[in-house]
Amino acid sequence: MSADFGSDRQGDDLERLCADALRVLAMDQVEAADSGHPGMPMGMADVAHVLWSEHLRLDPRDPAWLGRDRFVLSAGHGSALLYALLHLSGHDLPMSELQRFRQLDSKTPGHPEVGHTPGVETTTGPLGQGFANAVGMALAERHLVGRWPQAADALAHRTFVICGDGDLMEGLSAEAASLAGHLELHRLIVLWDDNGISIDGPTTLAFGEDVLTRFAGHGWRTDRCDGHDLADIRRALAAAVAEAERRDGGGKPTLIACKTTIGKFAPTKAGTADVHGSPLGKAELAAAKAAMGWPQEPFLVPDAVRLRWGARKAAWSEARAAWDRAWDALPAAAAKEVQAWFGPAAPGLAAVAWPSLPAGKADATRNASGKALQALAAAVPNLVGGSADLSPSNKTLLKGTPDFSPGDYAGRNLRFGVREHAMGAILNGIALHGGLIPYGGTFLTFTDYARPAMRLSALMGTRVVWVMTHDSIYLGEDGPTHQPVEHLMALRVIPGLRVFRPADTAETVVGWRLALEHRGPTVLALTRQNVPELERADPDGPARGGYVLWEAGDGPQVVLIATGSEVHVALAVARALHAEDGRAARVVSLPCWELFEAQPLAWREQVIPPRCGARVSLEAGVTFGWERYTGELGLRIGVDAFGASAPAEHLAVRYGLDAPSVLARVRAYLAETL
Amino acid sequence: MSADFGSDRQGDDLERLCADALRVLAMDQVEAADSGHPGMPMGMADVAHVLWSEHLRLDPRDPAWLGRDRFVLSAGHGSALLYALLHLSGHDLPMSELQRFRQLDSKTPGHPEVGHTPGVETTTGPLGQGFANAVGMALAERHLVGRWPQAADALAHRTFVICGDGDLMEGLSAEAASLAGHLELHRLIVLWDDNGISIDGPTTLAFGEDVLTRFAGHGWRTDRCDGHDLADIRRALAAAVAEAERRDGGGKPTLIACKTTIGKFAPTKAGTADVHGSPLGKAELAAAKAAMGWPQEPFLVPDAVRLRWGARKAAWSEARAAWDRAWDALPAAAAKEVQAWFGPAAPGLAAVAWPSLPAGKADATRNASGKALQALAAAVPNLVGGSADLSPSNKTLLKGTPDFSPGDYAGRNLRFGVREHAMGAILNGIALHGGLIPYGGTFLTFTDYARPAMRLSALMGTRVVWVMTHDSIYLGEDGPTHQPVEHLMALRVIPGLRVFRPADTAETVVGWRLALEHRGPTVLALTRQNVPELERADPDGPARGGYVLWEAGDGPQVVLIATGSEVHVALAVARALHAEDGRAARVVSLPCWELFEAQPLAWREQVIPPRCGARVSLEAGVTFGWERYTGELGLRIGVDAFGASAPAEHLAVRYGLDAPSVLARVRAYLAETL
Repeated sequence: MSADFGSDRQGDDLERLCADALRVLAMDQVEAADSGHPGMPMGMADVAHVLWSEHLRLDPRDPAWLGRDRFVLSAGHGSALLYALLHLSGHDLPMSELQRFRQLDSKTPGHPEVGHTPGVETTTGPLGQGFANAVGMALAERHLVGRWPQAADALAHRTFVICGDGDLMEGLSAEAASLAGHLELHRLIVLWDDNGISIDGPTTLAFGEDVLTRFAGHGWRTDRCDGHDLADIRRALAAAVAEAERRDGGGKPTLIACKTTIGKFAPTKAGTADVHGSPLGKAELAAAKAAMGWPQEPFLVPDAVRLRWGARKAAWSEARAAWDRAWDALPAAAAKEVQAWFGPAAPGLAAVAWPSLPAGKADATRNASGKALQALAAAVPNLVGGSADLSPSNKTLLKGTPDFSPGDYAGRNLRFGVREHAMGAILNGIALHGGLIPYGGTFLTFTDYARPAMRLSALMGTRVVWVMTHDSIYLGEDGPTHQPVEHLMALRVIPGLRVFRPADTAETVVGWRLALEHRGPTVLALTRQNVPELERADPDGPARGGYVLWEAGDGPQVVLIATGSEVHVALAVARALHAEDGRAARVVSLPCWELFEAQPLAWREQVIPPRCGARVSLEAGVTFGWERYTGELGLRIGVDAFGASAPAEHLAVRYGLDAPSVLARVRAYLAETL
Repeated sequence: MSADFGSDRQGDDLERLCADALRVLAMDQVEAADSGHPGMPMGMADVAHVLWSEHLRLDPRDPAWLGRDRFVLSAGHGSALLYALLHLSGHDLPMSELQRFRQLDSKTPGHPEVGHTPGVETTTGPLGQGFANAVGMALAERHLVGRWPQAADALAHRTFVICGDGDLMEGLSAEAASLAGHLELHRLIVLWDDNGISIDGPTTLAFGEDVLTRFAGHGWRTDRCDGHDLADIRRALAAAVAEAERRDGGGKPTLIACKTTIGKFAPTKAGTADVHGSPLGKAELAAAKAAMGWPQEPFLVPDAVRLRWGARKAAWSEARAAWDRAWDALPAAAAKEVQAWFGPAAPGLAAVAWPSLPAGKADATRNASGKALQALAAAVPNLVGGSADLSPSNKTLLKGTPDFSPGDYAGRNLRFGVREHAMGAILNGIALHGGLIPYGGTFLTFTDYARPAMRLSALMGTRVVWVMTHDSIYLGEDGPTHQPVEHLMALRVIPGLRVFRPADTAETVVGWRLALEHRGPTVLALTRQNVPELERADPDGPARGGYVLWEAGDGPQVVLIATGSEVHVALAVARALHAEDGRAARVVSLPCWELFEAQPLAWREQVIPPRCGARVSLEAGVTFGWERYTGELGLRIGVDAFGASAPAEHLAVRYGLDAPSVLARVRAYLAETL
């Protein structure tokens, strides 16, 4: 055994030994998997070691500790570095898991996955996401501290990020950086692995910009360090942490360009793209260990390194104990409420004074959502959110609370600017941080801009509410660029994402309530235009995702299935079919496919009888996907083309979605079918 | 009539009259429509007038003229300004169309739409897109000039952009700006409407960054001007144009912050968000006209303004005539070939030496695509493209040509960096510019990042080829963040977008050929892993989008429908069903749903017989949407969850996509069904 290797090291020699241990563990993981990214861990090992061993405040026995600093590996492909850190720092991640790097059901997947590995704060890999999640975490911290002045010391923490060139090339990080600078989130510290290499080769191929000047423009404090010089790393980190601890206002987030060599110590591949995303290979691995003066034995952790981490763990235990004492000294009611904010259930949800509308009166579901939101905000104290510069349209501005801003971090209105993608990733970061329930709004069409973040919210199961208004061509005059057509279906295909398209105020209220009760993300798709309030016999129907709204005659000859504003057209058509043609007709409102699919088969077949061949779908969007409910012989009415710029009522006629057009089509269809 | 109003104006008084004419026409359009955005046109009228009347080089009688400058209104909501400019400058856009602003089938939709209105270069509205399209246009210009030194003067032009705060908040513009600065696209000039207002209110709510410093970081030349001072506008534009005309290398694109007042001259609403997106209203409109000293008559264009534009048109005619003479002096062969590059058909396509693979030999379809691309590049001279920093994975690097770079603009390899969204919008810009056929690559998962640009390519019908590799969970160890699951369906729902997922080299070649023949965008979804070359009786099948690949027995009892790598599994399963169970079985390869849907019904029913109840779909992605081909009683095998990090062969078993698992499921299904 070579575990006593390095036992003579002291001071910075010992620290370098620890950094090398990270390098070697990462190399060995990738080599064992025969797949992965050794270059980044080898390059950033020194920086990561100093950060974790001298600054980052954690409790490895309690990774969910409220008082912990947040650490985000935005360059998620460097996961082997994170797993090495989590293992050495005493998280529940045994060496056997590192040895199963990237294998089925291991705790060490190719990219870090939150909820899967203890100590992982967010799922990263798609570049820029971790960076923007971290902005959300830093924002959440400032807000919670602002809301709970008496618990400020307990809730305060720093948010640290390691990111790569790729993160900074993505526009997402520019959006998030611009907002972080604007909001003076000075407790956010980003360590950029400035290694000059990406997959295609040197970053000079495509990324010649002066990043620090750009970040100065974003309103950031910037610095540089030699990422392999412990003293220089310490200097830069200390200055950043001093900025984070400023209490005089006007602080800035910090970006430190850590000049590193990718694949440091790999004798032939260091400093090249070859070491980015492939195992070193046996010979290069052996030579790299030799260059470090490291024994060849795989997955070796010298006792000296374990001892060093033992000291760190002891310091963490002390810090945690001190925090616990401070926490226990808080007024019990306050402590209890803060805990409730961090709990799984939305506090106060049972007490919401939901809005309602008399049947027959008309309102847009975006307005209904706005009213629901005001009621929610009054009862659920930790609901926060905003819009990507469409507050007046999305109806997302909360009354009676100011904007979240450097002057008032207790404000609950978030102003995201025209930054849908960063909004999405920041909402994820807020939800992951805990303590807050975030929502964000834009036009349904612009879900496309936020889509990578929405996918991650579904993958991570973050409770985020997406308030997506102007949900069809009935947006009108702004035209096809602003009219969603394929978006409902494009969102429904994402596993784990709930899409709720209510038909009136009552359904909108159900959508909001379920979204707050849900453990994952929900999209509310809301009308711009007014829709009348429906009468429904079964008030519990909407919560089941699909239900019989209206029926006349014996055993339906025709079932009209619709969502949102088209439910009203379906109702008018069904009434006419019954009254004028004597048809037994039924209208099904299907606000949420995912909820409906989760109902027992018997319920589903009761609502949409499979034996009824004459099933008609009606939705102002693509018909693709509706075959599921109409069967192949059914009739699908929708918009299988892009929209056009015109007043909404003219579009209805043009696209055959007005009641007379639909009635004519259904009649012709029934004449052929029945 | 007040058409003689202003006939006494001279010099800059006359120019101001012309600028006011733009303001008033915009106000009147919005008021007539009772919908639209008056604020931006009123704010930028002075800048726009100076640009169009003193710099922009066009031929209104021939909006497709190769030698024209490109003008992009990235802030597309200011469309009324563009329509006023197009009308006054003599494009085929009569006043009657301005009077039908935002009405059904008018030439003046809410946001500018290319192909719909003469003189509109691109469809804008979704913010940041126009900015990035313009980078693509500026890039195309540099490349064409580099490729055709003898026609350099004829092909050279400037690209001008008007953008707003919203454009600059979007990360897309940061990506595109970073690349434009890196590439030294000094003939690109962006005029930023720096009015300090967005929909939510003052930009200080969310956009406090120092934009000019940020752009300096991006490698841009920056300047400011008073956007209402003609002399200051002229100074700034002249300096930018001088930079554009530099021939000494090292030039930079220019951003000019034009300080303006949104809704200039609106007495109570100027300088506020109220004037951004709503009509002024009768009283405010009247008062604004009064403040300008303008007659109240709507849609009035004073004769003096018409005369001023008459002089401009004369100057344009002269410039065009001079250009025509220079063009006629070119060697006829060269002129003819340049024309061919700008023509609708891909030049040289008939001469491509397409790759092939003997049946049974295995290769990844991404490799087949790479080989097809090399063959294409050799024959089709105006094919250019690259990858968002995944060249080695996407197989998109062309051999025998350098990178497009400031040192060599004739290089055909574009290095986009990790900027999928800008890549997409730049590809659109290149295609819109004309003369070139662009392609771009990334992982299929990251289509999410480029989605808004992909939607616009479908809406505009730009010929862009998206090379999307690693098209399923078989990407393997990188895990769920990198594994597409819902993406094929999410792309298929976009109207006008072709999604082609080939099963082997032969189908890949067909995909590429059809993509180049197509007038719109195509996504090629390609495997990371090897797949064997198929034998097929009908070599024309793939081009029809779906065809019978294999069949045994009489009248199929079971039809297996698959795409891409799953065709091979379907084949193995079908063979076993026939050989071991005596089933009459058929395998349908369905590489392109959109092409298949365009076939006559008889063909489609011949390939997938609707009377055959036992239809099974097999695709390594969500099953949502497959009901169309299997019917509701069919069996749909796919991945209705996120993937996982593991070697591909383990994932196949985990998700039940390996041949034994599929065979077992199909057998159980048939036992129940038949």
